[in-house]
Amino acid sequence: MTSQPPQVRRHLAQLPGYAPVVPLAERARRAGLDPEDCLKLDANENPYGMHPKVRAALSDALADPHFGSIYPDPNQTELRAALSHYTGLDPSMIVAGAGADELLDLTLRALLQPGASIVSCPPSFGMYPFLADVNELKLIEVVRGDGFALDREALLTVVDDVGAAGVVVLTSPNNPSGDLVPGDVLCEMLARGATVMLDEAYIEFAGFDASAQELLNEYSGLIIMRTFSKWAGIAGLRLGYALAHPDLVADLIKVKQPYNINQAAEVAGIAAVECADEISEQIESVRRTRNDLYDALLEIEGLSPLPSDSNFILVGVDPGIGTGQELHDRLAGVGVFTRTYRDPLLTSHLRISIPRADQLDTLTERLGSVL
Amino acid sequence: MTSQPPQVRRHLAQLPGYAPVVPLAERARRAGLDPEDCLKLDANENPYGMHPKVRAALSDALADPHFGSIYPDPNQTELRAALSHYTGLDPSMIVAGAGADELLDLTLRALLQPGASIVSCPPSFGMYPFLADVNELKLIEVVRGDGFALDREALLTVVDDVGAAGVVVLTSPNNPSGDLVPGDVLCEMLARGATVMLDEAYIEFAGFDASAQELLNEYSGLIIMRTFSKWAGIAGLRLGYALAHPDLVADLIKVKQPYNINQAAEVAGIAAVECADEISEQIESVRRTRNDLYDALLEIEGLSPLPSDSNFILVGVDPGIGTGQELHDRLAGVGVFTRTYRDPLLTSHLRISIPRADQLDTLTERLGSVL
Repeated sequence: MTSQPPQVRRHLAQLPGYAPVVPLAERARRAGLDPEDCLKLDANENPYGMHPKVRAALSDALADPHFGSIYPDPNQTELRAALSHYTGLDPSMIVAGAGADELLDLTLRALLQPGASIVSCPPSFGMYPFLADVNELKLIEVVRGDGFALDREALLTVVDDVGAAGVVVLTSPNNPSGDLVPGDVLCEMLARGATVMLDEAYIEFAGFDASAQELLNEYSGLIIMRTFSKWAGIAGLRLGYALAHPDLVADLIKVKQPYNINQAAEVAGIAAVECADEISEQIESVRRTRNDLYDALLEIEGLSPLPSDSNFILVGVDPGIGTGQELHDRLAGVGVFTRTYRDPLLTSHLRISIPRADQLDTLTERLGSVL
Repeated sequence: MTSQPPQVRRHLAQLPGYAPVVPLAERARRAGLDPEDCLKLDANENPYGMHPKVRAALSDALADPHFGSIYPDPNQTELRAALSHYTGLDPSMIVAGAGADELLDLTLRALLQPGASIVSCPPSFGMYPFLADVNELKLIEVVRGDGFALDREALLTVVDDVGAAGVVVLTSPNNPSGDLVPGDVLCEMLARGATVMLDEAYIEFAGFDASAQELLNEYSGLIIMRTFSKWAGIAGLRLGYALAHPDLVADLIKVKQPYNINQAAEVAGIAAVECADEISEQIESVRRTRNDLYDALLEIEGLSPLPSDSNFILVGVDPGIGTGQELHDRLAGVGVFTRTYRDPLLTSHLRISIPRADQLDTLTERLGSVL
């Protein structure tokens, strides 16, 4: 070699990086188990998988000799029409991305200069600090209070300080605490002129009634992110969308990668919207199982589940049992893969994604076996 | 609405945007023709489409109940192993992206501060000025000379001026002129310490012997971009990869979106590598058809095809026939969709992607009908 390789920019050189989920096959291998005997409850995917009608749509598409070989539509015309049908909003207020992840990054990158502020309320989704790092933003954290409730006063004070020079990012329901962002807090921030990215990745599990979507017509500072990774069971195909003011959507479309939506995601996304009623039966099942799991966890001494409007439950672990990581590791040993965090706020917690209804007994039995 | 929507950053507000290819169905509709009767020769896709073995691999994957519903592997372990087999390089020198587009953007974003320089030699791929705009870079254009040959002296002078504070981006074979970057120019730039992103999107049509890959072991400033959109016929699934020094690859993996490769692309990419020998028969056919088309174009008065090492031919159009755009429009009227450019350097040119061998007569007949 003639010299040092090209060096990445200083703010990236020390990046801790995002801690992504370890693939199932790898986790099973480490546990010495068959993946089929394991419960993958670490990434909040739809435990019922891709709906058979979505699978059928992909199968039909694959029979078309043109499938996959030509570039996707940069304007996402058909997909945005389907999303318009699904959301009831005009296509001019919708842009699709390769997962909500791409749109979170794109929006921050489009709106904020390096050094500008992103306000987050941890514990929350690990991508926000990651994206703050990547985009060289100042991360302002308004830590949640008792039971991980939002600290309204502190948040509003920060919103006033930051003003139009920053973006507030909140998840509703929050990941990992499972609670919705109260409507009055959201309205108050927006009324004060804040730009709020509201990540509704899990909103289908709370019900669309709990969405802030109707506020889009009232507050132009609101940007809502959604994903097909959770409710629609196609995390592997990468599809999300943003809802925002048409002017901002037009700008995001201009700035995004032209061919950002792969054709498999496009086909599956349109099919998922078309069979949303059938998928909602899966969602209903997840909600029932969530409530059953919550009740079961409440009965276990030393575990404190938080109420959840989502497809996971955050569980407080009593020191008598161990740390969240220790319980996580014991569960991994019996093929139950959950999620823990580097965040010191969550040392005594672990998050469990909701399994299929028929897996609930296995989960509670294996949990009992390691306590 | 309470107020103006959030405003994008100043350098993005006036972005002209990338001029992407209009989808086939839309172009056919405008021409009043059935898409099946049209020749889509505007985006350099593989005219034979996805190979049947790749299609079969996707079909098999789709039969797995887990397909599509869980997150992809952020470390791309299996995919990078397949790419290692394909390229002969260690996986530590390989990172995959959602098309080479994502990797071009990611690399510029990781290496260059706003205001840093990107050196390009137009006419070339339209994404480079687009990415310069998005990343707020200073675009230094070293315009090609007669026959669109690289201006070596001018390029080397700029390389010395820019030094380590910029990146040179070159396409080999170049899009749209079809010529390879001469090895001595490349080595000279690298020896002077330049960081060079060499976009080998079309290298399979020139043959791997023409690749600069072997220089990776000698010059740590070399970064090679490749794609599956052209040779492998899966432009719609979005898959590309970068080859670079392991330290830079490690950094890019840390900075990229964790789940950037969708599962359909992963499956198809691995399958394409496994049947690369069969796909090379398609590539051979494209090369033969390219040579036949070149000969046919040479015979037509007023058209001046450029020799091409790629899967397209750039054609000079004599003013007696009209501008490149005028000939493009006449061809579109008879269902032959080619590519023209906003670039003033290319006013009297149009680019024709190589069709299937069995489409060549139709192409030359329709071309004859509008001259």
